[in-house]
Amino acid sequence: MPDTTALPSWNEGPAKQAVLDYIDAATTPGPAFVAIADRIATFDNDGTLWSEQPLAPQFDFVFRRWGQEVAADPSLAGTQPYKALVERDMSFFAGVETQDPETIKTLLAAFTRCWSGVTPEDFDAEVRVWLETVKQPKFDAPYVELVYTPMLELIEYLKVHDFRVFVCSGGGRDFMRVFAEQTWGIYKENVIGTAAEYRYVGGRIVRAELALGGLNIGPGKPEHIFAQTGRLPAFAGGNADVDIEMLESAAFALIIKHDDAEREFAYTTGADAAFTRAEELGWTVVSVKDDWNIVYARVETV
Amino acid sequence: MPDTTALPSWNEGPAKQAVLDYIDAATTPGPAFVAIADRIATFDNDGTLWSEQPLAPQFDFVFRRWGQEVAADPSLAGTQPYKALVERDMSFFAGVETQDPETIKTLLAAFTRCWSGVTPEDFDAEVRVWLETVKQPKFDAPYVELVYTPMLELIEYLKVHDFRVFVCSGGGRDFMRVFAEQTWGIYKENVIGTAAEYRYVGGRIVRAELALGGLNIGPGKPEHIFAQTGRLPAFAGGNADVDIEMLESAAFALIIKHDDAEREFAYTTGADAAFTRAEELGWTVVSVKDDWNIVYARVETV
Repeated sequence: MPDTTALPSWNEGPAKQAVLDYIDAATTPGPAFVAIADRIATFDNDGTLWSEQPLAPQFDFVFRRWGQEVAADPSLAGTQPYKALVERDMSFFAGVETQDPETIKTLLAAFTRCWSGVTPEDFDAEVRVWLETVKQPKFDAPYVELVYTPMLELIEYLKVHDFRVFVCSGGGRDFMRVFAEQTWGIYKENVIGTAAEYRYVGGRIVRAELALGGLNIGPGKPEHIFAQTGRLPAFAGGNADVDIEMLESAAFALIIKHDDAEREFAYTTGADAAFTRAEELGWTVVSVKDDWNIVYARVETV
Repeated sequence: MPDTTALPSWNEGPAKQAVLDYIDAATTPGPAFVAIADRIATFDNDGTLWSEQPLAPQFDFVFRRWGQEVAADPSLAGTQPYKALVERDMSFFAGVETQDPETIKTLLAAFTRCWSGVTPEDFDAEVRVWLETVKQPKFDAPYVELVYTPMLELIEYLKVHDFRVFVCSGGGRDFMRVFAEQTWGIYKENVIGTAAEYRYVGGRIVRAELALGGLNIGPGKPEHIFAQTGRLPAFAGGNADVDIEMLESAAFALIIKHDDAEREFAYTTGADAAFTRAEELGWTVVSVKDDWNIVYARVETV
């Protein structure tokens, strides 16, 4: 029996019903039962668990650091991705959405080079300063306060039903791990993302100038999920073209539709192919405007 | 208060007492308390959770496969590691214990090449056949029945005390994941080992001819543990020189001493440096002969 008090921030409607029906069927003996060991749920982060406009939060973090690097060494401004940053040419970074191999290679190289030699403690401290001081422009709030309340309820509901919930984002694994436990209630080991390799030298873990696997987008998502868990997801949630493969690989898929310009943002950039695929495969479309009665508990209760 | 009914297969003595005291202190408010989020325990597999004599079980599995490859293509017999296998030159494989870079490179290349293009389903089936048909020569039993009962009790005791238990072996991650849940009660995602990269192609996960990170031995152990979990272990157990760095990185370390020729095996090969380090750092030494009243429940209850 579905729990009628579940997911209070979700309006009654087909999206909420589809989620509750799937979880009910997966946890009830019968043809759609999912063994507890197989109950893996994976969620994208940017645009799925928190707002990604006007700029994905991690780009904000990374751009500030790259800006410092260019200030210290102006010659960097002649090479990508620093050139695009200095010239405010955001079209360069759209190469991530289109999964352009050259853009990805350039970004991955800059990402690994930038924090090479850094210890986890120093990296964590850097992320914490960003978390505490930088505010998202529209809501004048730290990014971590712009996590979607309905999605936190969904994570909790899945956990109560013996799903092991993972976050699987194109963003940096180590960046997300800094706030994962406090913000999502998800242990660091359940955070999958783009990652650098580490070396154990002189009794310490230090970042190397190498990526561990590729950028965690597109086919990289099921690849990283399988590497981390030994399974593909039973339940997955995303919002963009870079989530297509992860959503395809799951038994149940939901996709967030950003259609609420007032309470959040309205945009379809980087998500057209995903919505076409959603229609073809019958994924559950979650409209921010229609399906959620609260977007951010923090903003709306102030 | 330590639980006096805990770890029944462990004899009363300093090793059992040290384990119980650590876990008691780690879970009791006070100076040695360990936050629940930080309660990561990691165990080596070969020689720590199951017997590794006369041959580490995964070598048995891999050698059979390589033997088939040589039979199909006799020209392989001229190159390593096939040459050593054909000539029964086990000294070549000792290069793993001494962490010789050339041996490691050669083995890793053969390991990734051998199953390149294989799906997880096919690999799992191959491992299951091996598990069900191959018997360890001394005990005439499948290798999975030669898992140490006292270590299974310790894993369970740690889990009851809110430790998240991981296995971290030089052996293949995907090999261990086939039997991890049934044998150890540990989810696949808590198994860390030497691993290949995977590609998601045409809606399927397929093994690539590339390693994901290096061989999971020596410094590779804390490196892989950090990559998988975002932490270094609070509690770790091992038995060999290739475990030294993992044991050093933990707050509490135990090391298994194989000194029971009758009930198991007596050997110190590949463990001399580890026992020197154990003395220097005060690791808890667990004697199979003195500290365990049962080695394998399966063998001794038949």
